Amino acid sequence: MKTENDIASISGASHIEHKRHSLAHLLAAAVLSHFPDAKPTLGPAVDNGFYYDFEFSSPISEKELPKLEKEMGKLLRGWKSFDGKEVSEKEARALFIENPYKIELIEEIVKKGEKITLYTSGDFTDLCRGGHVENPAHDIDSESFTLDRIAGAYWRGDERNTVLTRIYGLAFDTKEELDTYITQREEAKKRDHKKIGKEMGLFVFSELVGAGLPLWTPKGTIMRELLNDFVWELRRAKGYQKVAIPHITKKALYETSGHWSKFADELFKIETREKHLYAMKPMNCPHHTQIFDSSPKSYRDMPQRYCETTMVYRDEQSGELSGLSRVLSITQDDAHVFCRQQQAEQEIFSVWDIIDTFYAPFGFKDIQVRISKHDPDHFEKYLGTPEIWAMAERQLTELVEKRGIKNWISGVGEAAMYGPKIDFIAKDSIGRSLQVATIQLDYNMPNNFNLECTNEKGEKEPVVMIHCAIMGSIERFMSTLIEHYAGNFPLWLSPIQVKIIPIMETHRAHAENVRDTLIAVGIRVEFADHDENLGKKIRAGKVDKIPYMIIVGDKEVESDTVTLESRDAGNLGALSPADMLARITKEIMEKK
Amino acid sequence: MKTENDIASISGASHIEHKRHSLAHLLAAAVLSHFPDAKPTLGPAVDNGFYYDFEFSSPISEKELPKLEKEMGKLLRGWKSFDGKEVSEKEARALFIENPYKIELIEEIVKKGEKITLYTSGDFTDLCRGGHVENPAHDIDSESFTLDRIAGAYWRGDERNTVLTRIYGLAFDTKEELDTYITQREEAKKRDHKKIGKEMGLFVFSELVGAGLPLWTPKGTIMRELLNDFVWELRRAKGYQKVAIPHITKKALYETSGHWSKFADELFKIETREKHLYAMKPMNCPHHTQIFDSSPKSYRDMPQRYCETTMVYRDEQSGELSGLSRVLSITQDDAHVFCRQQQAEQEIFSVWDIIDTFYAPFGFKDIQVRISKHDPDHFEKYLGTPEIWAMAERQLTELVEKRGIKNWISGVGEAAMYGPKIDFIAKDSIGRSLQVATIQLDYNMPNNFNLECTNEKGEKEPVVMIHCAIMGSIERFMSTLIEHYAGNFPLWLSPIQVKIIPIMETHRAHAENVRDTLIAVGIRVEFADHDENLGKKIRAGKVDKIPYMIIVGDKEVESDTVTLESRDAGNLGALSPADMLARITKEIMEKK
Repeated sequence: MKTENDIASISGASHIEHKRHSLAHLLAAAVLSHFPDAKPTLGPAVDNGFYYDFEFSSPISEKELPKLEKEMGKLLRGWKSFDGKEVSEKEARALFIENPYKIELIEEIVKKGEKITLYTSGDFTDLCRGGHVENPAHDIDSESFTLDRIAGAYWRGDERNTVLTRIYGLAFDTKEELDTYITQREEAKKRDHKKIGKEMGLFVFSELVGAGLPLWTPKGTIMRELLNDFVWELRRAKGYQKVAIPHITKKALYETSGHWSKFADELFKIETREKHLYAMKPMNCPHHTQIFDSSPKSYRDMPQRYCETTMVYRDEQSGELSGLSRVLSITQDDAHVFCRQQQAEQEIFSVWDIIDTFYAPFGFKDIQVRISKHDPDHFEKYLGTPEIWAMAERQLTELVEKRGIKNWISGVGEAAMYGPKIDFIAKDSIGRSLQVATIQLDYNMPNNFNLECTNEKGEKEPVVMIHCAIMGSIERFMSTLIEHYAGNFPLWLSPIQVKIIPIMETHRAHAENVRDTLIAVGIRVEFADHDENLGKKIRAGKVDKIPYMIIVGDKEVESDTVTLESRDAGNLGALSPADMLARITKEIMEKK
Repeated sequence: MKTENDIASISGASHIEHKRHSLAHLLAAAVLSHFPDAKPTLGPAVDNGFYYDFEFSSPISEKELPKLEKEMGKLLRGWKSFDGKEVSEKEARALFIENPYKIELIEEIVKKGEKITLYTSGDFTDLCRGGHVENPAHDIDSESFTLDRIAGAYWRGDERNTVLTRIYGLAFDTKEELDTYITQREEAKKRDHKKIGKEMGLFVFSELVGAGLPLWTPKGTIMRELLNDFVWELRRAKGYQKVAIPHITKKALYETSGHWSKFADELFKIETREKHLYAMKPMNCPHHTQIFDSSPKSYRDMPQRYCETTMVYRDEQSGELSGLSRVLSITQDDAHVFCRQQQAEQEIFSVWDIIDTFYAPFGFKDIQVRISKHDPDHFEKYLGTPEIWAMAERQLTELVEKRGIKNWISGVGEAAMYGPKIDFIAKDSIGRSLQVATIQLDYNMPNNFNLECTNEKGEKEPVVMIHCAIMGSIERFMSTLIEHYAGNFPLWLSPIQVKIIPIMETHRAHAENVRDTLIAVGIRVEFADHDENLGKKIRAGKVDKIPYMIIVGDKEVESDTVTLESRDAGNLGALSPADMLARITKEIMEKK
């Protein structure tokens, strides 16, 4: 099955792109007002705003940005239109005679046999393909953008070229959206999973092992296992069974599945000592088909529901690797249902139930449904025929509407290689969108492997596959949870749930009793019995974001109580050990 | 950690090799009596006897073997000595003038500058390096060997050469040993894990995925998980923690660990799209050192006990792959303890306790202890210095003797690359020896990675590693268990524990009640409610070797009882559902 290794981009309206592009022009105009000998090069719209790359005669610093931003605001008032016109090569060359970058661009346009167009607003004219707002002064709120930062960038992204100065701007439709974005970004920086993961000791990277290959510590592994056990508990109740496969295969498997032709760049390939070609698995589905297909199946055996949490591997470019968000080895909580066509609906709803139950405790907001379809302009990326795709997409759409989802999003070009998907998109605690789970309907891979069952009439009948992952990539889901909770995990998921600190040696026996009571019911306890001072132990507990601390002193020993200090709710006062245990176990059971 | 992928060979006395070698001569003599124009080529001793390769002028069949065996017995009575003498090349060439194979061997001996020796017993003289019994007639019991079978074999094992006829003989010290071997072999054939594994649907191989890469079905996966959970339960009680690592690494990790230089042939190597060199892990220890080393450790943090059940990969020659016994992807129940030198004894004894507890339920006989040491003649295979090896081997020997083991076996050359091992060798139900668990003491890898902790005085102190696996390779252990039990697994380990068969539709409700009672306490049940006939359902249950069948008919419905049919003990009569449940859960708890 395919799960994107990065956070899905939810495509917005193109109007904002026009604004951002117009603002790139405005930035260039403002720069030229203050630095008349700067040479503008290229300036596109990007995800959160725009940038423009310049060659300055001497370096400029971020201190210049407020001045340039003010200049943009001033110029904006006079920009009432964007006027395009086609010009000859000669005219264009004359206009940009002092700017070798624009000359290079003009030569390229000419070489491709395309038209040369110039766009003018106010006093500023740029070489440009178009895509602006009609009336910048009217269409753009001067409070809705800001200049953000400066960075170095090679001309055309090629490290053999000159380093230019890139000025980034942020731009949104309204001031409110801009402010929200800035706040969210500051908050996200504080919650960065790479930073928190290191502080809490959840995972590590090693230079010897390499980037994109996280190593999970005991604490991080506890969390992975708890999440995985939760998924398994829900799947078991729906009749799933675990299977286990090796992480490599002969090339032949992927020639049959289609991965060898459609997915070759991302495959880690292995040549054996005998010169046979193997690959590491980028997905588990082809291997799982071989288990299904190892014995004849009758309608009585259907559906077969296989699940397995295992790693898949993608040969990503090293520059794209980042913390847990993009890795080379991805742990998927993967499952494949092999069923008859008429069973697909029930099986998909059954997965949907699992997703609803699984996501409830995490408190993600506004879970949206996207139907991810194929891109008809790039049919070469997919298996099968347009007819099969049309049928599968229609079936999935009917299902989504039958489930009562009216306002689903259409994700053209977001399908998997083998079929359309239902993707679930949630918002985390600081409002960022993220793809969380996926259900995929596949007529093509079963067809490639010729998977069948015998029906009630004794005839062979083709089989349908449903690919589904609840968490998707455990690495990415862990990074999401770390940032969503800022490391303040709920009790059930915390690697250490309770820290017990006896103040003095005389309090140790009572503290040990409390510890043993907790351990006996499977609660994960840290016992701080070493000879550091009390303040240091408490501070360490806070750094580790442990949900509860129990500090045992004279009062507790005398009254046979414990004083519970909650990370989130502060001091909860003295409780009897039995009441404390009841409170904690209830909170764990409820996954609060 | 290193676990041999094959069943360890326990070296015996060399006297039996001399007998076997002498018998190869005797076979050649007997062949020449009956087939005077046959050309003997080479005839060595092998593990269970001997063989000799001949060129016959016309093919012979296995029907000839009894005649030849009788001839061997007759000739043996006259073979009172083995007389060796050195001859010149000329003499040797003259003697074997009609045998081009022997001429080729003579030429090779001459080329190497070695002496040419002939050995004669009775009337038969052969070109030979020696190594026989002194008096065959006296030393060899004529009932202790037998001719076994015929096979084709290329001259010198090279497929471009002539195909010769190989006659295999079995030979042991006594007739009893020979008979035991033959019985054992017949029994082993019936128990072949490849055959039983397929019949019971535990694992499968796919031509598309390739040999040596087993795929585990739901039933086989249940068994793997039960075994693994049992190991984890014992480890958890001893303070182990799970970790999780990726299955690949940059080359740099293995350059530091020493695997790149000592283990290169067996590594699956990967070149990424950016031309970086990676490898699939052949062992887990180097990755685990990186988790240990990711934060400074004080004496208070020691020992750190990491465990992980995960696959390692070895690039084996395809001709050596066989069922689950030798595979390319090996699941290890691996663990590494990082401790101070003075903690090693306690940690090793702690692993030993786990091994004792784990192996108790399986009923292997005569578990022996081997101290596996380095081979001083091939020190280039190992990390570290002779001094470190001497110390580690001495420490391990003292430990074994302190544990009360007097008659341990010495396994020179059986050590791991990085340190000596305590290996546990058991006998299965048909008397075959097999290596089952291992504890390894390692000063060298921590040294390569410069692993340290801070001691009580604030000084840096080098750390010791203990590598241990309880099952070793789960694939090999599964093959062992399948053959040990002939597929009749104990109740706790059976993928399906109880099969419930209602005789008619009227019995279904009662049968369903029984089923639900069992499922509610986690017992794995198969419910045979489809419309096949009763006999077929019962036969299927027997093929699947299900420990208990419950057949529900009128009698059971009327009296609210169940009749329990045990796979091993036959009909156990009618029981109340509560008594049945008590009996079954007790048997599971006791792992009987």
